[in-house]
Amino acid sequence: MGTIFLYEIAGTAMLMLLGVGVVANVVLGKTKGNGGGWLLISFGWGLAVFAGVYVAYKTGAHLNPAVTFGILSSGASEYAEGIPVNFANTVAYLAAELIGAMIGAFLAWAVYKKHYDEEKDAGNILGTFSTGPEIRSYGWNFVTEVVATFVLVIVILLFGGTPDKLGPLAVALIVVAIGASLGGPTGYAINPARDLGPRIMHALLPIPNKGSSDWAYSWVPVFGPLVGAVLAGLVSQAFI
Amino acid sequence: MGTIFLYEIAGTAMLMLLGVGVVANVVLGKTKGNGGGWLLISFGWGLAVFAGVYVAYKTGAHLNPAVTFGILSSGASEYAEGIPVNFANTVAYLAAELIGAMIGAFLAWAVYKKHYDEEKDAGNILGTFSTGPEIRSYGWNFVTEVVATFVLVIVILLFGGTPDKLGPLAVALIVVAIGASLGGPTGYAINPARDLGPRIMHALLPIPNKGSSDWAYSWVPVFGPLVGAVLAGLVSQAFI
Amino acid sequence: MGTIFLYEIAGTAMLMLLGVGVVANVVLGKTKGNGGGWLLISFGWGLAVFAGVYVAYKTGAHLNPAVTFGILSSGASEYAEGIPVNFANTVAYLAAELIGAMIGAFLAWAVYKKHYDEEKDAGNILGTFSTGPEIRSYGWNFVTEVVATFVLVIVILLFGGTPDKLGPLAVALIVVAIGASLGGPTGYAINPARDLGPRIMHALLPIPNKGSSDWAYSWVPVFGPLVGAVLAGLVSQAFI
Amino acid sequence: MGTIFLYEIAGTAMLMLLGVGVVANVVLGKTKGNGGGWLLISFGWGLAVFAGVYVAYKTGAHLNPAVTFGILSSGASEYAEGIPVNFANTVAYLAAELIGAMIGAFLAWAVYKKHYDEEKDAGNILGTFSTGPEIRSYGWNFVTEVVATFVLVIVILLFGGTPDKLGPLAVALIVVAIGASLGGPTGYAINPARDLGPRIMHALLPIPNKGSSDWAYSWVPVFGPLVGAVLAGLVSQAFI
Repeated sequence: MGTIFLYEIAGTAMLMLLGVGVVANVVLGKTKGNGGGWLLISFGWGLAVFAGVYVAYKTGAHLNPAVTFGILSSGASEYAEGIPVNFANTVAYLAAELIGAMIGAFLAWAVYKKHYDEEKDAGNILGTFSTGPEIRSYGWNFVTEVVATFVLVIVILLFGGTPDKLGPLAVALIVVAIGASLGGPTGYAINPARDLGPRIMHALLPIPNKGSSDWAYSWVPVFGPLVGAVLAGLVSQAFI
Repeated sequence: MGTIFLYEIAGTAMLMLLGVGVVANVVLGKTKGNGGGWLLISFGWGLAVFAGVYVAYKTGAHLNPAVTFGILSSGASEYAEGIPVNFANTVAYLAAELIGAMIGAFLAWAVYKKHYDEEKDAGNILGTFSTGPEIRSYGWNFVTEVVATFVLVIVILLFGGTPDKLGPLAVALIVVAIGASLGGPTGYAINPARDLGPRIMHALLPIPNKGSSDWAYSWVPVFGPLVGAVLAGLVSQAFI
Repeated sequence: MGTIFLYEIAGTAMLMLLGVGVVANVVLGKTKGNGGGWLLISFGWGLAVFAGVYVAYKTGAHLNPAVTFGILSSGASEYAEGIPVNFANTVAYLAAELIGAMIGAFLAWAVYKKHYDEEKDAGNILGTFSTGPEIRSYGWNFVTEVVATFVLVIVILLFGGTPDKLGPLAVALIVVAIGASLGGPTGYAINPARDLGPRIMHALLPIPNKGSSDWAYSWVPVFGPLVGAVLAGLVSQAFI
Repeated sequence: MGTIFLYEIAGTAMLMLLGVGVVANVVLGKTKGNGGGWLLISFGWGLAVFAGVYVAYKTGAHLNPAVTFGILSSGASEYAEGIPVNFANTVAYLAAELIGAMIGAFLAWAVYKKHYDEEKDAGNILGTFSTGPEIRSYGWNFVTEVVATFVLVIVILLFGGTPDKLGPLAVALIVVAIGASLGGPTGYAINPARDLGPRIMHALLPIPNKGSSDWAYSWVPVFGPLVGAVLAGLVSQAFI
């Protein structure tokens, strides 16, 4: 369990440092990447996963409660080589993912500290930490997160059957794909820890002009991904 | 044949969910990727293929009647390991591809539901589902689709001779290449199911302001790709 | 020698179809990729090489007289497995590369026929076929082509020492790199056939408003790449 | 030691030729890539590393004093296969990296000579050679460089545990990730030689309108990366 904590915290922190970072680079004022566009954000998040997977390779690099729940509902017996699926390990993954996400968001804030201090737009600040819908509609936003997370988890669960040697690149490119294709309405949380951890950091950090943490929306990017992941786990059983 | 249906429907649905999705993200109003540009669309479609190939790996991941016809005209004896080329299997692939494409387009519509509801431009709406020419000229549009599909199918048929380990990434990058280089005039259907399935869904779905489904053009992205694929199959016999 | 002709003509035609195509998509009016930017062009040319390498894998996929001359001056004994370096084979590669480049440019013109017909800017039209300098200075333009081609050929010659499994992707990414980094002043011919073949087609094809083929500049993208390639071949001997 | 000099000078020169080149392409006037955006720069630098790694593969392709110090502080016994960690080799790597960076910057200047001559903005000129902060704050700029370099070096040190076959592509993509996500505030030196070598060339080269070399900032991109690298080396010992 110490192994799970060490690697999943570190890997999820890496994911979120780079993930929050790319949005900060595009959205906050006076950065070199300001206005860099959606493809930059999509590649940034995909490569954030890429880096995180290398760090947490030993524990299977879930980095995401949706992946943990997806494996759980797929009926697999192990979360990674030598780590059995059981209650204690499940809790360890989930806790490590949330802690790691908070640490990563904190580090990204430190990297962009001066740009956060000068930002006047509360929406931009929250947008670097957590996701939010372009058209608020809890039902349809929920649908979007369910489908996008289903895509992520089903492909991860089906990786085993494909004889490529892409390693972490494969999942990175799937995340690029989801951002490019399904990120338009809600900003693709597809990961409860990715959204909740930074939202907590947003509430805690001393950022001028930061505004509300929008807790009213916060359940969508937590439960949408979990539902999508469980569906993917169940459906995967028909394919393997 | 049940295997063909399961995997090819699922894989083509994945392809079209992500493919229709990326165009919706770039074209529809108020999305995060609005105005994201042609490179975003080219990568989006390429990675849509990437994801679809993982899902349908077991049946060779045709996802496209042009691929099915290309293999058929290349004189190969199997559509995928253990699946002989014969009439019943051919029909199963074609039917599964069309059904999968319709399901994928439906899911993409659900993901972008609120954005479709608010869209006022009928051309934008149809453009997310099906292809259309920038300069209407059935003859030259047909030529464009023949050449672009020829490129796709000839490279797929020649993959076998190259000792890389890129797996699904190779075909994904070829699709990015075709979009970047040959997609300018017609939006590169290069896949009859990719165009016809979503066009049928466009006709069926209750989208405000959706306008005509442009059936007058619909034969070009069906027969152009089939002609290009058969040519590629025949030409490939000189190379192998 | 028939093998060299078949594969190198086909591979270079594939390269140029996609390469001329991406510039046409970005530069010509009313295309879907119009104004798509330098990254789209850089990826387009890189992936054009990617596709061309698959087609011509059997003959080593030179696709470029600079590669042929680079291998020649590196002191290697074979152009590809089973193809010895000798005068007849050298001539066969060079001829096939030029013929293939002309065929590819012709096909790209057919794909974008209606857009060429409507284009009013002669510079845009020539720019899709051949390269040209942003600041005309034959000496410095020559330097740029020498350095850029040196990069291409030295990396290709050093590939053998690296145990990756990227296959054609490695050279494709080097071409993306050269476009992104060294393409700014002259449009990176880095391949005499890539520039001369399409320039001949530009002179021959019936395109309204096409203007001059700029033969005064045409020696730079032929001899610059050859000098860079020979330098790379000689330098490579120190590294291997 | 001759081997270290040959390969690390050549590899770092390749890195810097392409790295300085892509910024020149985006920033200097009248280039084909002018205004090409942050994603172009991020890919350009990533692929510059890709090319440099092929050239210097035999000596482990450090190309960066931060990598050398990271390996040193990780407690490894070899810098590359057959090259023991000792004082003389350490000095050889560092010297070769600095010399290579200067050579690369010189070559990039030659490639863009006419564009440098016509550039009027001193900030643009320096920006192609060396990094600089968007919001000057030595303390926070230092933090940014520490974190960004930590990411680079920790992932490189953890590569060994991951069974992919990406070779140089993995590190290239990590560099793309760092640029996209953490490059916003300071332009991500993450490499003392990458910043110092070109800054020296900037001071030496006869460029009209070049202005100050900003030596006041120059310690940040030297010592920030070294601190980040040593931290990564120490932390890596907990993971391996």
